[in-house]
Amino acid sequence: MIVVNPGKTKLLKNLLVGATGGIITFSTGLAANYEDVMTKETVKPAPNLEEVIPHPEQMQEALAKLAELESRTGKKPNILIYLMDDVGWGDLGVYGGGVMVGAPTPNMDALAREGLMLTSAYSQPSSSPTRATMLTGQLPVRHGILRPTLYNEPGGLGNSITLAELLSEAGYVTQAVGKWHMGENPSSQPQNVGFDHFTGFLSVSDMYTEWRDPDFYPEIALSEERTQMMRDFAFEKYWVQASKNGELERIAEIDIDVLTHLDQNWADFSVNFIKEMADSDQPFFLYHCTRGAHFDNYPPEEFLGKSPAKQRYKDTIMELDDILGRLVKALEETGQLENTLIFIASDNGPEMEAWPDSAYSPFRGAKGTTWEGGVRVPGILYWEGMIEPGRVSDGLFDLADIFNTSLTLAGAQDLMPTDRYIDGIDQTSFLLANDGLSNRKYIYYWLMNYFSGVRMAEYKYMVLAEADDEPGSVNPGGFTGSLNIFAYYHMYNLYLDPKEEHNISIRKLVYNDLFLEAMQKHFATLKQYPPVVEVFPGLVH
Amino acid sequence: MIVVNPGKTKLLKNLLVGATGGIITFSTGLAANYEDVMTKETVKPAPNLEEVIPHPEQMQEALAKLAELESRTGKKPNILIYLMDDVGWGDLGVYGGGVMVGAPTPNMDALAREGLMLTSAYSQPSSSPTRATMLTGQLPVRHGILRPTLYNEPGGLGNSITLAELLSEAGYVTQAVGKWHMGENPSSQPQNVGFDHFTGFLSVSDMYTEWRDPDFYPEIALSEERTQMMRDFAFEKYWVQASKNGELERIAEIDIDVLTHLDQNWADFSVNFIKEMADSDQPFFLYHCTRGAHFDNYPPEEFLGKSPAKQRYKDTIMELDDILGRLVKALEETGQLENTLIFIASDNGPEMEAWPDSAYSPFRGAKGTTWEGGVRVPGILYWEGMIEPGRVSDGLFDLADIFNTSLTLAGAQDLMPTDRYIDGIDQTSFLLANDGLSNRKYIYYWLMNYFSGVRMAEYKYMVLAEADDEPGSVNPGGFTGSLNIFAYYHMYNLYLDPKEEHNISIRKLVYNDLFLEAMQKHFATLKQYPPVVEVFPGLVH
Repeated sequence: MIVVNPGKTKLLKNLLVGATGGIITFSTGLAANYEDVMTKETVKPAPNLEEVIPHPEQMQEALAKLAELESRTGKKPNILIYLMDDVGWGDLGVYGGGVMVGAPTPNMDALAREGLMLTSAYSQPSSSPTRATMLTGQLPVRHGILRPTLYNEPGGLGNSITLAELLSEAGYVTQAVGKWHMGENPSSQPQNVGFDHFTGFLSVSDMYTEWRDPDFYPEIALSEERTQMMRDFAFEKYWVQASKNGELERIAEIDIDVLTHLDQNWADFSVNFIKEMADSDQPFFLYHCTRGAHFDNYPPEEFLGKSPAKQRYKDTIMELDDILGRLVKALEETGQLENTLIFIASDNGPEMEAWPDSAYSPFRGAKGTTWEGGVRVPGILYWEGMIEPGRVSDGLFDLADIFNTSLTLAGAQDLMPTDRYIDGIDQTSFLLANDGLSNRKYIYYWLMNYFSGVRMAEYKYMVLAEADDEPGSVNPGGFTGSLNIFAYYHMYNLYLDPKEEHNISIRKLVYNDLFLEAMQKHFATLKQYPPVVEVFPGLVH
Repeated sequence: MIVVNPGKTKLLKNLLVGATGGIITFSTGLAANYEDVMTKETVKPAPNLEEVIPHPEQMQEALAKLAELESRTGKKPNILIYLMDDVGWGDLGVYGGGVMVGAPTPNMDALAREGLMLTSAYSQPSSSPTRATMLTGQLPVRHGILRPTLYNEPGGLGNSITLAELLSEAGYVTQAVGKWHMGENPSSQPQNVGFDHFTGFLSVSDMYTEWRDPDFYPEIALSEERTQMMRDFAFEKYWVQASKNGELERIAEIDIDVLTHLDQNWADFSVNFIKEMADSDQPFFLYHCTRGAHFDNYPPEEFLGKSPAKQRYKDTIMELDDILGRLVKALEETGQLENTLIFIASDNGPEMEAWPDSAYSPFRGAKGTTWEGGVRVPGILYWEGMIEPGRVSDGLFDLADIFNTSLTLAGAQDLMPTDRYIDGIDQTSFLLANDGLSNRKYIYYWLMNYFSGVRMAEYKYMVLAEADDEPGSVNPGGFTGSLNIFAYYHMYNLYLDPKEEHNISIRKLVYNDLFLEAMQKHFATLKQYPPVVEVFPGLVH
C-alpha cells in the first residue's frame, strides 16, 4: 500500500486495494455503484405517492443505522438544509469550478468528499417553485407557485401541507432563516406554514435594491419621484421575524448596507440556534436559505475582493462557503454533527442575464430553462458516521425528495399526506446505505405549467424547451427567452453529451415506448390528482 | 475538530483548522495560493529562454527537497509522463466529469487530490504539435510540427534537441512507449531522437483502422480494390520497436484485434520496465503515451461495457485510469514511488467531430481550436513526499514546461540548449514548494502558424480563432472549421466566463498595453530566433 504518512493518503489507499492479477479494481467507496434504472421495475408505495425503485436491503441497512443512532442520542436526527441562491453546478471546486473560476470553495468541497456528492440533483427552473417543491414534496403545477413571486405577490402555500408543519407535529423545533420567497401574503408566510420561528426577508434580494442602487438602476435611484413611487409601493421592505402564527416584526429596513450584512447576520442567528439546540430534548429542522449569491451581490467588507477573481459574485461564493463552515463548526463544537443530516444545494441554475454577477455551469441553458443548466444543481449530503465518506453518485435526486426523506428520518412517515399527490420520494436508503442507489427512476421537467420532458437513466427526452438560439445571443438560455415546442421530440444522452448539443432522437426510437410510458404515468397522476393550474402537456408524441 | 474516524476526515480537518473569531479561514493546503501575475515583474534567465516570474524562496525550498531526496536515494529522480490521447479536461472526476459523464476515474482523481491538480494546464490544439512541444520545450512554429502527421508523413524532429537526448546525456535510461506521432521518417523516430528504446506505433490510432473497419469506413473496408490500395500505401502499419539508433523491428501488424489490446500490452511493457529499473543505478525517463482514447476506440473484452455509459470512449477512459493505477502500483511495489515524478495529461482537447466516441470538456471549442476547449487539458502532478497533497492551482502551465522542469529535476540545467529559443520554463519550484506558485506569466496560443492570442492572469486576449458559429452547427469547434480573424481583438475573463461567451474587450481597454507588450515581447523572440515556418501574426492591434 502507498503510505505518504498515515491518514493522508486514505483515498489513494482505498483505490489501490483490491488489486488482483495486476488489475486494480475500483473501490465501491469512491466510484458510485450503478444499476440500470431503465430496466428496473418500480412500485407505488401508495396511490398518491410517486413510484420508487425498491431497494429493500439498503432500506434495512439505513433503518438499522437510524435506530442505532437514536438509541445513542435519544432523539430523532436534526436536519439542516443550506440552500443557496442562483449558485451554479460548476461553482463548487468538486464540480469542476472553485479554483478554476476564481472562487475556492474548500468547505463545500470537503463536505462533498467526505459525504455523498450528487451529480444529478435537480431543482425547478427558478427560485420560488424550487423552494415550495422542497417544502411540499410537490411539483410546481401541484403547489401552484410557477415562477418567482415578485413585489408583494402572494404565494399560495395556504393550502399546502409543508415539511415544517409535519416535522413540527413530529416533535421538531422548526426554524427558517434567510430568504423565504414563497409569497408575502400572511397565509404563505413561514410562521403560518409550520415554522416555529422565522428570521429573514420574504422576497428575493433584488427586490430590495433594484430601485436603490444608483449604479445598476440609476433611472429609479437617481429620480426622486420614482424612488418615492417605490417607497409607496406596499411590499415588505424589511428584514422581519415572526414566531409561530404570530405577526411579522420588522427588524431593519433593507437598504444596501443592511443587505450587505444579511448573510453574516443570518449566519450568526443560525450558529446561535444550533448552539441553543444542543441541550434540547427535541431535534431541529433548520432551513437556512442564504441571500447570496443572487444578483446584485454586495459582499461585506471582510469578503470584498477576497476571491482571486475579485468580483462580487465570487466574493459572495467564498462568503457562503465560509458560512457553511461556521454552521458545521457549531454543530461539531456542540456535539451535534453525528446527529445532523446536512444538505447543501442551490435553488436553480445560474442567472446568466445578470452576468458577470452570476454563476458558472458547464451545462446548456441557465436559470429559467429546463436545459440542464437551469435545473441541475449541486447537491451534497454530509452526515458524519451515517453517510459513507467519498461517495459520488449520478443517481437521480429531485429536491422534492427532501420532503419524503425528512419524514422518514423523523420517523414520521405516518404523517405523509394522503389527500394529494406527492412527487417526492423517500431517498433515505440511497443516502444511508453504504453503497446506496437512488430510488428514483424519473425526473420530470416542467417549465412553469408547460411540461418539458423526462429524464430516465442517462437519457433526457424533451418535448419543449426555452429557446436559446436567437441570432446574436451570446448568452444561451435564461428567463427572458421564448419557448420552442419541438415538432418532434428531442433526445440527449447526458453521459455522452452533458451539454445537450446532439439531439439523437432519430437513432433512439427503441426507447420511445419507455418514455411514452413514463409520461403517461405522470399525466395519469395529474388526472387522478388534478393540479391547481391548467397544464400544457407539450406535444407528447 | 471533526473526527469521524482517524484519518478518514483528514481533508475536512485540514479545512476547519485555523478558525479564528468564529470565521473559518481557508487552509493554504487545499485552496491554492494566489498572486496577481499581471502586476509581477519577470526576468529572462538567458537570452534564449522564456521569461519567468522569479520565486527565489520557493526555488530554495524545492532544491532543498531534491537534495534531501537524492541523498537518500543516491540518484536523480525518475520522471514518468502519462500522456493520454484526445482526453478532455472534463473527463476526469476531479475536473467535474467521472461519474457525471458515465466513466469514473478513481485513480486519476486520487492522484489529483493527493498531488497538485492544475486547472490551467495548456497543450497545443492537436496531437503532434503538443508532443513535440513537450519533448523540445518549443512552440510548434519553432519545432515545425504544426499539425498531426498523417500517413507516412515526416515529422521534422531531426534538427531538434529533445528532452530524451538531454536526459540520456544526464545519465537517464530513456524509454518511449506507445503512441509516437511525431513523424515516420527515420530522423524523427524515437530511437533516433534520444530514446534508448521504443515500443509502440509511429502514427495515430485511426491511421491503422480507418480503412479496415467495415462499420465506420465501409467504402474502403468493403472494397477489395481500395483495401489493396491502402495495403500498397507505404506507411508503417506495424507495432514496432527499436533500440537507440537501431532499425525498426516489427512486432505485429496493427489490425483491429491488435489495436484493441495495444494499451494493455504497452501497460505490461511499462510495468515490467518499472520493475526492472528498481535495481538500476540510473534514474529513468518513461514517456508512456496511450493509444486511447483517440477515435475509434475498441476496448478490450475486460473493459468493453464496463463503464456505466457502456460506450467505447468511456470504457477506454476506464481502461486508461486502470492502467495508470497499474503503473503507480508497480512504482509503489518496487519502492520507487518516492523517487518518481508522475505527470498525467492529455495531448489536446476533445475531438468532437468523432462524437459520440469522444471526450467531454465544459469549455468552448474542441481539438483543433485555440478556444479553451482545444487546449486546456487535465494536468496532474503526483510525487509522494515531494508534492504537498491536496493542492489545486490555476497557475499557468504550458506542456512545454515539462522540458525545462525535467532538466532541473535531472540536475542537467547546463545541458539547456543555447542555440535556439526555448518556450518552456522551469516550474520545479511551483511543483515542489508546498505553497508554490506558477513561474509562468503568459500562455501564447497558436493555431498552426497563425498567432491566436495570449493569456495573462484570468484574461485571454485573442486576435483570431477557429470559427464555431456556422449556421446549423451543433458541434462547436473542431479541426474542420474555418478561421475567424477578429476585426478588433476579443477578450474573455476566464474566471467569470470560462466558456468564452462574453467578449468584453470594449470594457477592458486598460489592459491593452499589457497585452500588446506581451505580444511584442513574444514577436521579438521570433525575430531574434526566426521560426522554421512563416508565421501569420494576426491583427495585432
